[in-house]
Amino acid sequence: MRIDPLASWNEGRAKQSIIEFVSRVTDSGTPDFVPPTERIAVFDNDGTLWSEKPMYVQVLFALDRVDMLAPMHPEWRDQEPFASLLEGDVGAALAGGEHSILEIVMATHADMTTAEFHEIVREWLASAKHPTTERLYTEMVYQPMLEVLSYLRANGFKTFVVSGGGIEFVRPWAEEAYGIPPEQVIGSSIKTAFRMRDGEPLLVRSPELNFFDEKEGKPVAINQHIGRLPIAAFGNSDGDLQMLQWTTAGPGPRLAVYVHHTDGDREWAYDRESSVGRLDEGLDEAREKDWIVADMKKDWKIIYPHEMG
Amino acid sequence: MRIDPLASWNEGRAKQSIIEFVSRVTDSGTPDFVPPTERIAVFDNDGTLWSEKPMYVQVLFALDRVDMLAPMHPEWRDQEPFASLLEGDVGAALAGGEHSILEIVMATHADMTTAEFHEIVREWLASAKHPTTERLYTEMVYQPMLEVLSYLRANGFKTFVVSGGGIEFVRPWAEEAYGIPPEQVIGSSIKTAFRMRDGEPLLVRSPELNFFDEKEGKPVAINQHIGRLPIAAFGNSDGDLQMLQWTTAGPGPRLAVYVHHTDGDREWAYDRESSVGRLDEGLDEAREKDWIVADMKKDWKIIYPHEMG
Repeated sequence: MRIDPLASWNEGRAKQSIIEFVSRVTDSGTPDFVPPTERIAVFDNDGTLWSEKPMYVQVLFALDRVDMLAPMHPEWRDQEPFASLLEGDVGAALAGGEHSILEIVMATHADMTTAEFHEIVREWLASAKHPTTERLYTEMVYQPMLEVLSYLRANGFKTFVVSGGGIEFVRPWAEEAYGIPPEQVIGSSIKTAFRMRDGEPLLVRSPELNFFDEKEGKPVAINQHIGRLPIAAFGNSDGDLQMLQWTTAGPGPRLAVYVHHTDGDREWAYDRESSVGRLDEGLDEAREKDWIVADMKKDWKIIYPHEMG
Repeated sequence: MRIDPLASWNEGRAKQSIIEFVSRVTDSGTPDFVPPTERIAVFDNDGTLWSEKPMYVQVLFALDRVDMLAPMHPEWRDQEPFASLLEGDVGAALAGGEHSILEIVMATHADMTTAEFHEIVREWLASAKHPTTERLYTEMVYQPMLEVLSYLRANGFKTFVVSGGGIEFVRPWAEEAYGIPPEQVIGSSIKTAFRMRDGEPLLVRSPELNFFDEKEGKPVAINQHIGRLPIAAFGNSDGDLQMLQWTTAGPGPRLAVYVHHTDGDREWAYDRESSVGRLDEGLDEAREKDWIVADMKKDWKIIYPHEMG
């Protein structure tokens, strides 16, 4: 008996398309064959590999850091967006949009070494619980996507995370959660600087944006880090659209998959109107170009690993 | 009979140290054991993996490009550094130092797509000959270092190039020359931008520096691309010093190797006084910290692959 590599996927076009694509590129007798070194697959993280509601996990992390750092910053009581945050009004704090988020990130992610930040992320993820499910965030990865990652790797693919979130926020746990080593994690970043402190070399994180790995930034980052065109890309939002366009631009077989959040009971249902993980333009383009749209409600037997029998 | 993995190395401290290091980190019965995922080795390129005299290969490439593009740039006749270059006076052209080089690079490396640049580099390397040896540049890689690369990979290491030169200048040929795939090549870069041209996505190279991967930049780039500390580093100049400091800063066994250009007959002899590939501060620190200094004249039986029997 053959074991189903995508056991948590219901039979349907999405599952079938993924399997057919892998069969085509690994069949050495055909013109569609792709040598293993060129089997590059890229995955968005938030909303594609784990849940991103009610807010990106990294934003929840930053809010917890604000609470923790507040005693050392009495000036925050009178300074937005921190004042609203400390009064528990996240909505008002984030009303300033990207600018407010950037200010919160810089205040909570910088002015420490890369090693220190790594430990802070690890410790937080080991205990912080999701506000509604009360599970660890690393338990809220998608079982069907874990199967896709394993299935691709078993077929000679190299799998990469290409996240709009922070590269150093994802790396500390991606190997354990996804089997993806740090050198295959790409993301947004702030600047770091090499310093000598008492004869010991350190990398210090500066409160300055280095690269924003979203929309047009994703192909740029893929080129910078990987240096060749992926042949498969998975995303869930308009922020991934250029990555899917870039991946499907090359010759030969290409796989572009959008995860569509359609399951308000088991996860969340959102697309065109959502501020987090909006999928609007991308959904139109997916239909026009006949990309795969994986419908979480119909295509996925289970969402999270803990639901496994 | 056991095959010697470093057959082009003479017996001596350098060869012995490399072999002892690899034996230690791969011996699972000891506290020095390093799991395969953490066996990261980084290599400078110019002067460490291939020759860099009389000038960096990429500078020679840029000069050839200036000649080729000159008919389209009549204004260069009156504009430095191009005017001097076109009169054959490379010394005068480069007298402006880093600024002149940057101007030449931007004029010859930008305003085209990443795919176009890749092809230009491949074509040039397929025919351009070294000014004194009259060999292809890819024939001027160091046989003893190719053996180190293979030996490390055979022992579970992932090998990376960390070049002060352009990341997209090295990638087109590193896989064939060194067995190092594009996603394991790190280097300096100019900015690229995602564009749609007639519905086709492209990455266009802009004439603006993105990152300079030299000195303090090397640890920053290693952290950005790899996300963990290497355990072995190979360089040949002061530009690699911070990379060697960074690599040896971690706990457990660490290997830092400087290739010392001591062979004026078979290659070139230079160190403290050279403008290209200066090794001065690094040589002092290597002696002070007991790093390995591979003496090309004494430690290497042959330099280039074509000398093999």
